[in-house]
Amino acid sequence: MGKIAKFAAIMVTSVMVLSACAKTNLSMVKDVKAETNSSAASKVIEPHEHLNQKPIPIKINRLGEHEVNVEMTAQITDIEISKGEMYKAWTFNGEAPGPVIVVNQGDKIYFTMKNMDPSIPHSMDMHAVHTAPSKNFSNVMPDQTGSFSYPADNPGVFMYHCGTKPVLAHIANGMHGTIIVKPKDGYPTDSDVDREFVIVQNEWYKYNDMDDMTNGVPKYVVFSTKALKDGDMNTNGTVGALVDHPLLAKVGDKVRFYVMNVGPNEVSSFHVVGTLFDDVYLDGNPANHLEGMQTVMLPASGGAVVEFTVTEEDSYPIVTHQFNHATKGAVGALKVTKDGHDDGSTVMSH
Amino acid sequence: MGKIAKFAAIMVTSVMVLSACAKTNLSMVKDVKAETNSSAASKVIEPHEHLNQKPIPIKINRLGEHEVNVEMTAQITDIEISKGEMYKAWTFNGEAPGPVIVVNQGDKIYFTMKNMDPSIPHSMDMHAVHTAPSKNFSNVMPDQTGSFSYPADNPGVFMYHCGTKPVLAHIANGMHGTIIVKPKDGYPTDSDVDREFVIVQNEWYKYNDMDDMTNGVPKYVVFSTKALKDGDMNTNGTVGALVDHPLLAKVGDKVRFYVMNVGPNEVSSFHVVGTLFDDVYLDGNPANHLEGMQTVMLPASGGAVVEFTVTEEDSYPIVTHQFNHATKGAVGALKVTKDGHDDGSTVMSH
Amino acid sequence: MGKIAKFAAIMVTSVMVLSACAKTNLSMVKDVKAETNSSAASKVIEPHEHLNQKPIPIKINRLGEHEVNVEMTAQITDIEISKGEMYKAWTFNGEAPGPVIVVNQGDKIYFTMKNMDPSIPHSMDMHAVHTAPSKNFSNVMPDQTGSFSYPADNPGVFMYHCGTKPVLAHIANGMHGTIIVKPKDGYPTDSDVDREFVIVQNEWYKYNDMDDMTNGVPKYVVFSTKALKDGDMNTNGTVGALVDHPLLAKVGDKVRFYVMNVGPNEVSSFHVVGTLFDDVYLDGNPANHLEGMQTVMLPASGGAVVEFTVTEEDSYPIVTHQFNHATKGAVGALKVTKDGHDDGSTVMSH
Repeated sequence: MGKIAKFAAIMVTSVMVLSACAKTNLSMVKDVKAETNSSAASKVIEPHEHLNQKPIPIKINRLGEHEVNVEMTAQITDIEISKGEMYKAWTFNGEAPGPVIVVNQGDKIYFTMKNMDPSIPHSMDMHAVHTAPSKNFSNVMPDQTGSFSYPADNPGVFMYHCGTKPVLAHIANGMHGTIIVKPKDGYPTDSDVDREFVIVQNEWYKYNDMDDMTNGVPKYVVFSTKALKDGDMNTNGTVGALVDHPLLAKVGDKVRFYVMNVGPNEVSSFHVVGTLFDDVYLDGNPANHLEGMQTVMLPASGGAVVEFTVTEEDSYPIVTHQFNHATKGAVGALKVTKDGHDDGSTVMSH
Repeated sequence: MGKIAKFAAIMVTSVMVLSACAKTNLSMVKDVKAETNSSAASKVIEPHEHLNQKPIPIKINRLGEHEVNVEMTAQITDIEISKGEMYKAWTFNGEAPGPVIVVNQGDKIYFTMKNMDPSIPHSMDMHAVHTAPSKNFSNVMPDQTGSFSYPADNPGVFMYHCGTKPVLAHIANGMHGTIIVKPKDGYPTDSDVDREFVIVQNEWYKYNDMDDMTNGVPKYVVFSTKALKDGDMNTNGTVGALVDHPLLAKVGDKVRFYVMNVGPNEVSSFHVVGTLFDDVYLDGNPANHLEGMQTVMLPASGGAVVEFTVTEEDSYPIVTHQFNHATKGAVGALKVTKDGHDDGSTVMSH
Repeated sequence: MGKIAKFAAIMVTSVMVLSACAKTNLSMVKDVKAETNSSAASKVIEPHEHLNQKPIPIKINRLGEHEVNVEMTAQITDIEISKGEMYKAWTFNGEAPGPVIVVNQGDKIYFTMKNMDPSIPHSMDMHAVHTAPSKNFSNVMPDQTGSFSYPADNPGVFMYHCGTKPVLAHIANGMHGTIIVKPKDGYPTDSDVDREFVIVQNEWYKYNDMDDMTNGVPKYVVFSTKALKDGDMNTNGTVGALVDHPLLAKVGDKVRFYVMNVGPNEVSSFHVVGTLFDDVYLDGNPANHLEGMQTVMLPASGGAVVEFTVTEEDSYPIVTHQFNHATKGAVGALKVTKDGHDDGSTVMSH
């Protein structure tokens, strides 16, 4: 056996050992191979390769006193997940997280999804409703439209997401969002609240990489906000989105956040610097009241209503206090000014 | 210095670097070495190597109005943790998780453990009781029997586990289970509940590998159910067990789950698709009531009673919404039929 | 191309692949390189290299009925994080975690920080107060002293920490602690409590290694206790500190723990072996009452008051039931003796 053969044998062992590295590494080995082979095999699904479907606004209109029509799309749209870094996301309506849905407790939702993805089925699983999942959370095939209906009888802040297999990939690739069901009798604190916002936490992994999604740590953990009404800000889950474009309030306001952690994998320790949550409603149910909390524990697919009063002008950082995740992007800011308008002052990140 | 020597030096450096990989990798390096040396060093403890002790049913019998006798074994039994993949588990009674224990609030438990393991001491730590742990959770030596007694004065859903050092290995290898202490005055919702089940979440790691258990990510995360009464289903913590053998209910039933996350390491975001938990009692205590929850956060060794009503025929997936864990097996199903009997319809997994 | 060149090329590929290992590994690769180069590049910041500032006690004195003066230092002090293993910690007052601060609900805190670090700004973010963070949690430059004031109007158990960027590094390097705000009307259980202790959970990572702090798993997870009054024990976050020096109580005592999980990254599943928590107040607020809990879920920067009664002499192990973390050090003991004095008996660890 010649020297080269021997060393080749050693290298094979070495590569075996390498491929025995934590599973996260396997995919990276493949990436490196791809690069060195210059085969540049991308993980973008082939039919998505040159697809970047323009965001189509969600349609929500009331049909009757207790009936709401909601029309959404499943579509493939480039999302900036960090400065200059695009992700060919699987989305609802070209946003990731998807647009917020707001209905009233007791509403029946008539939901229609147009699947604009030419290659993969998608679906809609709403945590807010009671229904037969195999019937009403079922797949809508490529280029098809599906219609479903179900009651939203429980008040709260709920996750929605694509429930098509593999669910992890559909969520991690961007198909998640928030549905708010307003309580019939309101929250005890309704009359005190001056402003309200939606904040969603989600993670991003290596592009469409099931192995990384399953065994790895998130590349980014991010916050976004979703418009509750016309004129409100609407951002995607981009590192720094809520620092560059802070939420706004004015001195003395009682502020409400509808918070939702869509995961797909991590829990959240939601916290706002410089204040405490006077009132917290777990999963947004008025019956689940906590007081004076510094930090709210959110499971994956956990929601909360958190309320607090801002007493001084400043920028109040919003974080998950799991600081490895804050370091990866899960930081935002609430800017409090004299009149509630942006005064152009600088917002500090963490 | 000859070429081979030089390259050998390079390889040594390379191996040094490899062994500097995250600790998870260290054990894998050893595995690969073992294979290449064809020494096939297994991590099964030598005295366990050809041991597969037949499951011995738990014995529970009432001695008096407030006294219960519980007899269990510690034994080494092969458990199928995924299709066709056996794990020589350290178990209670040949099950992993172990059988459920049900007592009444106010009972004194007379507990006997027969340690059938020929090589290692085992013990029993019940989270349900007040006792001096060094006395009543103490080691029972190989081939010995130990007897202990303690009061179960707190209602709820509690973990039990082997508390022998290293505790992590004893739990991760299979020695965990659930004890339910029925509240003296019941739950406020008792009269509405039609069916009840026990669901346990646990993780599996590389076989008896403390390094992987301590620094790695779980290989599988799984659900099992444990019989509450004769004729109920009893499964081990096997990937897909509760999909292949779904829990059963009939349309209109109010269903109660006693849920327990035994870990050993991970928290759980417990969720059932297509419904909401109308009533939740944290750690199963009637005083800790939450309403209308989409997802319940369970710490490692956290329990809950969750209740919901199923209104349509279908299979309702049960998951931890930490979807990396669901992807690794933590998926089950509740099948709802017209009459509560299995109609043979297909259950979808995630 | 000669053989060596060829093999060198192979090695380069190999190193590329190696450097593609999970990010944790990158830093280790660097460490190994440093060692093999015998350049011994340490990660201790150069101006800290020969610095080991003697701990300076915190000063807390009451100025008026509702005004408290608190004087602390930021300083660089060697902390033993495991037997014989020193960590040149960034600390408050030479302790890690820092000393506990106790004030009354309604107090105004006049806070002064002397930054004795010659090279880096530090700051103080108290979760207990309402204030403008950019003004009152702002940086104190090296060798400077800063003064701030803010009201502590919410009762509870709160985290404090350095809020200077990168926050993760400042917390992970040791700048964290607990502030207790005693409720104006007390806890409903105040008259029953015989003894109270503070327990803090924190993680240690590779020395000042942002990559490990962000992407790795903790090297140690530890408990410490902080003196509530003169004569009480005060330990740093050292593996085994609360096993070697257990907390003490006497038979029949109702014991209260003020528990705080400062992270920086991990959540905690707090549990005491052999007992249950009769009363739990989440984040230490009397309004957030839970009963009969086996395990309390604490987010990163989550606090709780937990209370239980010890009925027999023994050592009761204290753990996070995330047993990978307990295995890494998060174990303590409460020793219960006839008279509440240490009887010299052995305490078992897990």
